[in-house]
Amino acid sequence: MTNKIGVISMFYARPFGRANFGTFAQARASGMEFMELLVPEPGELDPRETKMAAAEHGLDLVFAARVNLQRDLASPDEAARKAGLAYLRTCVDEAVAYGVKIVGGPLYGAPLVFAGRPPAPVDADARKRRFDWVVNGLTDAAAYAADKGVILGLEPLNRFETDVANTTEHALEIVDAVGNKALGAMLDTFHMNMEDRDIAAAIRKAGKRMVHFQANENHRGFVGDGHIDWPSVARAIVAVGYTGPITLEPFRRDDVPAGTCVAQWRAPHRNEDAELAASGAYLRAALDSARRAA
Amino acid sequence: MTNKIGVISMFYARPFGRANFGTFAQARASGMEFMELLVPEPGELDPRETKMAAAEHGLDLVFAARVNLQRDLASPDEAARKAGLAYLRTCVDEAVAYGVKIVGGPLYGAPLVFAGRPPAPVDADARKRRFDWVVNGLTDAAAYAADKGVILGLEPLNRFETDVANTTEHALEIVDAVGNKALGAMLDTFHMNMEDRDIAAAIRKAGKRMVHFQANENHRGFVGDGHIDWPSVARAIVAVGYTGPITLEPFRRDDVPAGTCVAQWRAPHRNEDAELAASGAYLRAALDSARRAA
Repeated sequence: MTNKIGVISMFYARPFGRANFGTFAQARASGMEFMELLVPEPGELDPRETKMAAAEHGLDLVFAARVNLQRDLASPDEAARKAGLAYLRTCVDEAVAYGVKIVGGPLYGAPLVFAGRPPAPVDADARKRRFDWVVNGLTDAAAYAADKGVILGLEPLNRFETDVANTTEHALEIVDAVGNKALGAMLDTFHMNMEDRDIAAAIRKAGKRMVHFQANENHRGFVGDGHIDWPSVARAIVAVGYTGPITLEPFRRDDVPAGTCVAQWRAPHRNEDAELAASGAYLRAALDSARRAA
Repeated sequence: MTNKIGVISMFYARPFGRANFGTFAQARASGMEFMELLVPEPGELDPRETKMAAAEHGLDLVFAARVNLQRDLASPDEAARKAGLAYLRTCVDEAVAYGVKIVGGPLYGAPLVFAGRPPAPVDADARKRRFDWVVNGLTDAAAYAADKGVILGLEPLNRFETDVANTTEHALEIVDAVGNKALGAMLDTFHMNMEDRDIAAAIRKAGKRMVHFQANENHRGFVGDGHIDWPSVARAIVAVGYTGPITLEPFRRDDVPAGTCVAQWRAPHRNEDAELAASGAYLRAALDSARRAA
């Protein structure tokens, strides 16, 4: 069984609304098999209409959760923690409404740079407290997801984007503490490239606990245009028997002179369908080679 | 001629004062040939005393500049831009006082995550304005440095730490616009790993414009413990004839459970001399192999 390869909606547009439904055909034409959408906020999209528009082009949907300082399982503010948990339940409900099986992202909360929160030292007590809040919140969310047949994927982010889970080990530490099969790890090579000492070894360690995967180049451009060792990544994916979705998120863009804000999402300035298709084909070829050799 | 390999003072302590002079002997015992100090703020260190303490153990000194939102060549606030320029002149004066030849760092200013500044889109006009402010400021600073026999090394940082120079290309774009041999590029593999598509190719492109180098693992742990392709980096360093200093900055530390603030500098919790020595020896061996094969 092979992995479905898809693309994040932000590759085309953000926010993503009905006006962007034309990208479903575009994605399909680039060889994509699913679209990963940011979990729609109230009023952004209609479940039935969206599901049908995607299905018309043979595309599944996957969800990416959006946390912030106001919905944050790791917050010292109890209201934010409660809102964080309520949000995860909403994500599960929305997943059911959209026929989505997987909701991934930094489910624990605690955003840093994108929330304008500077990195600050955390003492052992505060660390333990936050870890427990996160585990408690995710224990509840995972039970809720399990009831609804939805899988939650906890994604570690690089050190500048969060101070809760940065490495694959961190994600597994939390996943194991929760101990519910409805919560697994979601791994993204962009973040792994910064935090894990050996990307392939980290995938092998995650093993069956890996429930979602994002394939991004080191600079977040197109897969194959950087230094991620894709043959080694593909061999690890095959070795652990991961047959779930693999999302491409190439939104680096190619017009970045000095002074551009590279971290901030930027709209495409030209049609990048050919590059997306080439990335997908490259990754598929790497996976095929790995499977043949396995 | 071989490169001197040294270590940043933050490996041992921050702030770094007279009480930390014992680390000069420690660094030397780990095979280090220089110490890179943060440019001392007024009253932090005495030039003559520090220089002598380092020299006693055969160590040169190199400087790392510290910018912030109040001293920032790229700021929309004119006072901050003036303070940014005044600071660079102070760095040059301090370099002369300490017998230091190279001052490196994100000289252009514009800190992001460590200043709690969230990434924000920059339009073309604002980009051009900031680029010009940076080039004007560095043109003045480079002329001042040239007069005093000091070299400035402009360091691109990853997208989360600044929005002025992220890639080697960005650094070269600014260096070329200034066009003074007293300003070159300083490259750090930690940042290159995130932003450059090909680290070795970027070094080769920088060529003679490269005036300082920091060798860091992808996760900022010890060189040799991650996935940076050091043989390829070493070959590029040799190919461009770079014989300047190479600084190690391994301050990841090894006690990082989930919930640790990995981005924030943390003090060592145990003696890491053996790992530092092994890193230096490994890098030296990679450079020696590259030289032998050249």
